[in-house]
Amino acid sequence: MQTGTFLLEGPNAVADALTDGIVLELFCTEAEAPVWEGVGPVVTLVADHVLAKIATASSPQGVVGIGAMQRTTLDDIPAEGLVIACHEVNDPGNAGTLIRVGDAVAAAGVVLCEGSVDPYHPKTVRAAAGSLTHLPVVADVATLDLIAKGRQRGIVVALDGSGETDIEDVPVDRPVVLLTGSEAHGLPPGVLAACDVVASLPIWGRSESLNLGAAAAVAAYSLTRRMRATA
Amino acid sequence: MQTGTFLLEGPNAVADALTDGIVLELFCTEAEAPVWEGVGPVVTLVADHVLAKIATASSPQGVVGIGAMQRTTLDDIPAEGLVIACHEVNDPGNAGTLIRVGDAVAAAGVVLCEGSVDPYHPKTVRAAAGSLTHLPVVADVATLDLIAKGRQRGIVVALDGSGETDIEDVPVDRPVVLLTGSEAHGLPPGVLAACDVVASLPIWGRSESLNLGAAAAVAAYSLTRRMRATA
Repeated sequence: MQTGTFLLEGPNAVADALTDGIVLELFCTEAEAPVWEGVGPVVTLVADHVLAKIATASSPQGVVGIGAMQRTTLDDIPAEGLVIACHEVNDPGNAGTLIRVGDAVAAAGVVLCEGSVDPYHPKTVRAAAGSLTHLPVVADVATLDLIAKGRQRGIVVALDGSGETDIEDVPVDRPVVLLTGSEAHGLPPGVLAACDVVASLPIWGRSESLNLGAAAAVAAYSLTRRMRATA
Repeated sequence: MQTGTFLLEGPNAVADALTDGIVLELFCTEAEAPVWEGVGPVVTLVADHVLAKIATASSPQGVVGIGAMQRTTLDDIPAEGLVIACHEVNDPGNAGTLIRVGDAVAAAGVVLCEGSVDPYHPKTVRAAAGSLTHLPVVADVATLDLIAKGRQRGIVVALDGSGETDIEDVPVDRPVVLLTGSEAHGLPPGVLAACDVVASLPIWGRSESLNLGAAAAVAAYSLTRRMRATA
């Protein structure tokens, strides 16, 4: 269901979105016009300083596009495979990294639960580096609703520093939902209690934790490698 | 060797630096004074708006400190264990994430080679979340010098999308230097050719790559788990 539009900045984002058929309109500089005219959407030539005003990035590299938002629901996520989800992640860079990680491991979907940043925030779109249109990305989901659906589907694994199970020891014989919390506060007790397992990454040194995107990537790769090996 | 000072922002960074004995001076608001007076360094009380001017973070949480930079060289890095290095990483958040990952896996050190951001950039310090003083962090190293030293010490593994060896298949019977490139350009051919192995992470989906910090974290965890299992 199309509910709005969002900004595509730069040739990579535009090219990805063209492949996915969701570009409504393009704006580019005269120098870039030969690249984009004829690819499909209406192309409007604009001066460099106009393009700079349209874009939020400091260097839009000659082209921006208007993309059609793809609003999806939990029902759009396949029953098999890994789902990466977060609760109250309000840093758009971290949310974008989660989406990019989800794409890299061919996850079934990414879910941004309550209190999380909008997946179409320009910084999220940039950090997702084109992955936003590669897999179902679902926003505005109540965290406990996600957990209930995840448990019907398989197992819900909270990734939290308090977890006593090493992520490498989490069972992967059923589809996994991996749920991360906010960088500052982790996951609240009520959410942790509703999950099947609370897992963590080993910390061998003196840091208290990892950056959220980095931790999610390590966990997603660990789970995906084992899910694929046992499939 | 102390060559300068840098800014510590917020209670966590200050507390970590106090533990490491590198705080020269503190500035805090009257409300926070009971926490910090008597911990050691000279404490100066300042108004909230003054603290906000000293800090680069939008919410310094009542305290900033002046830390003594710890300039280290490659000779300060132990001969055993993993070294995480980067070439031309100019995003301070990514550099900070590399340092934090290095700390988490108890790496022997982190090396920011030529063209990389300064480890004492305020955004690097913040992204490193206290880890900067937990392990040797070496800056201003010529990349080919690092590779030469790394090959004397063990094996140098380039992490690059062009790599045909899965990071899980890299031999870990000798100490590893893991070298990453810039987010935009990866590693140049001359650097790749000088390394022992060019490794990559599998991408099962449609993304072309991972965020630099996320990729380094996955690789560092993979190498560290296997290095510890075989030690």
